[in-house]
Amino acid sequence: MEKIKIGIAGYGNLGKGVELAVRQNKDMELVGVFTRRDPESVTLATPGVKAYRLDEAKSMKEQIDVMIICGGSATDLPEQTPELAQYFNVIDSFDTHAKIPQHFAAVDAVCKKSGHLGLISVGWDPGLFSLNRIYAEAILPSGKTYTFWGKGVSQGHSDAIRRIAGVKKGIQYTVPVEEAMEQVRSGAQPELTTRQKHTRECYVVAEEGADRKQIEESIKTMKNYFDEYDTTVNFITEEEFDAVHNKMPHGGFVMRSGMTGEGEKTHQMIEYSLKLESNPEFTSSVLVAYARALKRMKEDGMTGCKTVFDVAPSYLSIMTPEEQRAHLL
Amino acid sequence: MEKIKIGIAGYGNLGKGVELAVRQNKDMELVGVFTRRDPESVTLATPGVKAYRLDEAKSMKEQIDVMIICGGSATDLPEQTPELAQYFNVIDSFDTHAKIPQHFAAVDAVCKKSGHLGLISVGWDPGLFSLNRIYAEAILPSGKTYTFWGKGVSQGHSDAIRRIAGVKKGIQYTVPVEEAMEQVRSGAQPELTTRQKHTRECYVVAEEGADRKQIEESIKTMKNYFDEYDTTVNFITEEEFDAVHNKMPHGGFVMRSGMTGEGEKTHQMIEYSLKLESNPEFTSSVLVAYARALKRMKEDGMTGCKTVFDVAPSYLSIMTPEEQRAHLL
Repeated sequence: MEKIKIGIAGYGNLGKGVELAVRQNKDMELVGVFTRRDPESVTLATPGVKAYRLDEAKSMKEQIDVMIICGGSATDLPEQTPELAQYFNVIDSFDTHAKIPQHFAAVDAVCKKSGHLGLISVGWDPGLFSLNRIYAEAILPSGKTYTFWGKGVSQGHSDAIRRIAGVKKGIQYTVPVEEAMEQVRSGAQPELTTRQKHTRECYVVAEEGADRKQIEESIKTMKNYFDEYDTTVNFITEEEFDAVHNKMPHGGFVMRSGMTGEGEKTHQMIEYSLKLESNPEFTSSVLVAYARALKRMKEDGMTGCKTVFDVAPSYLSIMTPEEQRAHLL
Repeated sequence: MEKIKIGIAGYGNLGKGVELAVRQNKDMELVGVFTRRDPESVTLATPGVKAYRLDEAKSMKEQIDVMIICGGSATDLPEQTPELAQYFNVIDSFDTHAKIPQHFAAVDAVCKKSGHLGLISVGWDPGLFSLNRIYAEAILPSGKTYTFWGKGVSQGHSDAIRRIAGVKKGIQYTVPVEEAMEQVRSGAQPELTTRQKHTRECYVVAEEGADRKQIEESIKTMKNYFDEYDTTVNFITEEEFDAVHNKMPHGGFVMRSGMTGEGEKTHQMIEYSLKLESNPEFTSSVLVAYARALKRMKEDGMTGCKTVFDVAPSYLSIMTPEEQRAHLL
């Protein structure tokens, strides 16, 4: 069997996770990592594979089936995904929900011109959670969908804490409210405000002599980040911070509470949940599974930009369709 | 918008559920119900729609986009689905897992000859549970998948109880073992025997003067049905039986416990669950959503037999692809 040849653009947490995930799939091989840093400064985990400058990528376009782009959604991906789609079949984890239509249009235009296939917004939200929303809403048209996140680290909120004067280290966990989830499970279909669905837990190491009251106040009243939530701020030692808060766990729940039958009186509940010890490693694993799909969809003649909604599940599995029907159906 | 024209073959619990589910989808309309009973004896819930003899169906082939076949898997579907695929795009909920490959081949052969599209084994298991198995295994190749069923009524086991002498009424609930599920969620990846995963709860109304000890013994030792499980038998009054045990709830869990990262030491947990007040109504809802997909896939030029693995999620949604990306992704 000829292996699927993978390139990685960007070598942060996500890129490193993709490298490790590729190893777990015996039908794939890593061809190269492309970075904006000095390639000499980058040590890969894969023997015999080299790092290259990002602008060298296009010279290797014949050697790579799928380029997995591991940059950030704010500034990297809106530029890199269309750029690289000129030369490669591309896949990214673009997660700025509000800007998906515009990113889709940009990637689609380039792919249609270059004859490549692109797949954007692959991960768990957007990604697996989106899949669960579309399946559940199609099956139970009369009902209500709820998405809860956590317990997990929010990068954006942690960054916001760290920008406050007097904060040496800080991390923020988004925590779903158990009672709200139980209400949803009961079939009550409650209207839940932002505050009722999640709380925010912060752990902060203060600089020596810093005003802790002031830090706590600054966090709790921060617009858009914390002011609409019940937020707790815990001051801890640097030792505790480094020992306990050095991971990037995350997860969450997608729930659909729906009604069926005569007079829509029968309650039907669909629930999907993730409990992830490492958010970037899991997102990487989703990207790599979809890289397999991308290669096969390209072979089936597809071009342009797609999302997880356009990918038949069969494309993702290492098994043949016959094996899938015999063992997974 | 031209509506999707649905036919229903078979008017038991499932067929009635399909009729009600069609009403919940504003892009669909029911054209007719086809039954082996005397059509005069069948009263539909939908005003203006008629019941017909099953053998009249083919004369209406031009008026129906998708025929949803609601017979039983043991004897009806192996015959009806290939038969009706000569004239219609067909969809069924064939659920005898071991015989799926052979049913697939039979339906595929007819569809390829007639130019129709078939979709078999649509429901929740096989169906939504299968989808969760294929997604989760593709994403976490290193791991273990667990399927738990219940709490819910097993029709086959309930029938088996009712065949025992002295049993007037009987019902059986399959119950997943909470401790086993907790073990899975912990990441321990246990090897679980049949007995460790589920228990069986039976509720029996005995005939007057029947030997209850004998009934209980017959149930608990019944080969293939109960002997490998911890089974409890509760004798209750007919009043209680009729009041409490007149529903068909079901549900279950698909769990994938997987490991990622350097040395595969990071635990990642995917869990999907259903809690259904009515098993047939929910299965009907799944069939109806996939009928929409079938119509669209046929318009896209597909023929032959497919399963849920071959259906891109986008086909299921009443929304346009643009709306899906803006609101669900």
